[in-house]
Amino acid sequence: MTHIESVGETPIENRTSEADQPRDSLVALFDAPLKLDAGVELSPLQIAYKTYGKLNAQRSNAVLICQALTGDQHAASRNPVTGKGGWWDTLIGPGKPIDTERYFVISSNVLGSCMGTSGPASTDPSTGKPYGLTFPVVTIRDMVRAQAMLLDHLGIETLFAVAGGSMGGMQVLEWAASYPHRVFAALPIACATRHSAQNIAFHEVGRQAVMADPEWRSGRYLIEGTNPRRGLAVARMGAHITYLSDAALHRKFGRKFQDRSNPTFSFDADFEVESYLRHQGIAFVERFDANSYLYLTRAMDYFDLAADHDGILANAFKSSKTRFCVVSFTSDWLFPTSESRATVHSLNASGARVSFAEIVTDKGHDAFLLEEPELFGIVRGFLEGAATARGLDRAS
Amino acid sequence: MTHIESVGETPIENRTSEADQPRDSLVALFDAPLKLDAGVELSPLQIAYKTYGKLNAQRSNAVLICQALTGDQHAASRNPVTGKGGWWDTLIGPGKPIDTERYFVISSNVLGSCMGTSGPASTDPSTGKPYGLTFPVVTIRDMVRAQAMLLDHLGIETLFAVAGGSMGGMQVLEWAASYPHRVFAALPIACATRHSAQNIAFHEVGRQAVMADPEWRSGRYLIEGTNPRRGLAVARMGAHITYLSDAALHRKFGRKFQDRSNPTFSFDADFEVESYLRHQGIAFVERFDANSYLYLTRAMDYFDLAADHDGILANAFKSSKTRFCVVSFTSDWLFPTSESRATVHSLNASGARVSFAEIVTDKGHDAFLLEEPELFGIVRGFLEGAATARGLDRAS
Repeated sequence: MTHIESVGETPIENRTSEADQPRDSLVALFDAPLKLDAGVELSPLQIAYKTYGKLNAQRSNAVLICQALTGDQHAASRNPVTGKGGWWDTLIGPGKPIDTERYFVISSNVLGSCMGTSGPASTDPSTGKPYGLTFPVVTIRDMVRAQAMLLDHLGIETLFAVAGGSMGGMQVLEWAASYPHRVFAALPIACATRHSAQNIAFHEVGRQAVMADPEWRSGRYLIEGTNPRRGLAVARMGAHITYLSDAALHRKFGRKFQDRSNPTFSFDADFEVESYLRHQGIAFVERFDANSYLYLTRAMDYFDLAADHDGILANAFKSSKTRFCVVSFTSDWLFPTSESRATVHSLNASGARVSFAEIVTDKGHDAFLLEEPELFGIVRGFLEGAATARGLDRAS
Repeated sequence: MTHIESVGETPIENRTSEADQPRDSLVALFDAPLKLDAGVELSPLQIAYKTYGKLNAQRSNAVLICQALTGDQHAASRNPVTGKGGWWDTLIGPGKPIDTERYFVISSNVLGSCMGTSGPASTDPSTGKPYGLTFPVVTIRDMVRAQAMLLDHLGIETLFAVAGGSMGGMQVLEWAASYPHRVFAALPIACATRHSAQNIAFHEVGRQAVMADPEWRSGRYLIEGTNPRRGLAVARMGAHITYLSDAALHRKFGRKFQDRSNPTFSFDADFEVESYLRHQGIAFVERFDANSYLYLTRAMDYFDLAADHDGILANAFKSSKTRFCVVSFTSDWLFPTSESRATVHSLNASGARVSFAEIVTDKGHDAFLLEEPELFGIVRGFLEGAATARGLDRAS
């Protein structure tokens, strides 16, 4: 019987070393403590990041890319763990919509993740062992605070633009709310100003799948030499369904049987959609830390911009000078268009400058990561307009 | 930390005894083998069932109730395992839409389940031990074949009506397709003629959650004295989200915190929706067999009425004399109205007599089990009309 029990084992050394010493990345170390929403301080703080393109003399052409839940700093270059291309190779590069011949692109691994920025898989210098659950719970605002420290470190006062989808889009909105004077243009894609009850519910199932795995060991698996890979694979399989759409699954797989024309009358992966999902689960476990998955889903659940501003969402963007371009996808049921509309309404109520595009596609939430020419056109056009307004020369 | 690891343990004796000797139920035993779609024969076959009301002299007032995935024979009376009322108490009873003063209601536990009809938790008489995965994989058609054997046993040639929601609705459609002359009226609610790729995907995640639990022991947990309760609880939590709707979750829980006004910055159940889901998972494990969950989800995945009729759905209902009433709910995204419309179109193409109602509600798929007055009115009206056509006296 083939099921996800057959997931391969990754040596612990590999998993901790990437968190502490990320390959193919720049690393910034901060001794000054990062004050977290949880009321505690994190120190030291390490941030792993990549840059693409050149910072101009005026230091005015920086674009910050914010990663989604399972993304990383390798937005536009080969990921050393998977050996695959960058997760936003479609959008970022020479001549591409986020044009590295024109803009200086910065992509950092998010706080709480496992690819070189401090997170539960990092070594706690006070014990010499991985943090595990002793790592403080972080929020989207904490992630953005850490990114602001990185920008200070790089000597960049104002971002030309900040862009991201899903959890990355939440960071974009938080940037505009927390540091309005530091963001000229903002591109929040396929996201919301708060996580819905249904999305919290899906995240909770994923976390319970991880925590139900006896190898999770109350989060101490890196120390105890185990790996809750089956729980994490189940979590990823469930989440992956929410990234797609019923129509996309129907188009890709329908009810097609795997390598045969008839059912096997067993619990093997009879349908193609089953083996596809199993593959997604297994591949994910090879590159992601289970505790990081808990921390990042938790951060998304806690995200609620209105609650952070006296219950009035428009207050989050009061007197904002930032130019916004909000994008949603028709078949995205994780962050449906209604969420983006609510964002747009609050931006309108704040008197902010905002454009909004709903892209017709059957690709679901994942559309922001896929070949979606209409998205490319919108991002290119929005950034070109903003670049002109910002006075960025073509050859800067 | 409260998570589903804290699920209580149910003694194995309790779990196997209910499968073999169901309480508060009638039991029919068949020595004649049941030929299954998998190409094997099952013998002996045990069916646990309940009846409500009285069979009339003409034996013409029988209504068969088909259970959903996690239902049972206790449709309209106290469930001896949970101590709660019947799962369709809202619809079945004296003076209720399925009026037990008028109709003779039969509700049997479905083949493959764990409440007294043969299934993986039953004792295999050839070994004296629970079947586990040696129980043959069954289909919706097999379930209906078993029910037909029960009707033969009860001396009922023709059902006045057959009714059910979700997997129960699939059985209703299969009844009409397999035994058209034995069904006068059919009420398939919140279902489809085939399981979609997305629904197969959700089921597969649930199965993987069960099979990832080390206590599942390749399905031999009843023999080995373990219980994959954590895996099954995770499966139930994930499935439960699909039974509700985003709107219902928002209305019931929103982003309300549990017993406090602020986040705890931990992995406790901070949000009300999280503790609700955990409770659903834990309660389910107390009453359901993990292997039965695998078998019944598999049967739903395999269901494809068109495929069983040369790829042409209308052929399934060719020259059917049955009266159909198809019902869907606007917020049901597991079996959306589009699926019911497809059923109706094929019934129209077959020249069958069909009425269709889409009920406006935010309760999601679970609406068929809940207080939904419009559903009650439709079921009552449809059955009354059919009873008149059938010549059933009010006082029969």
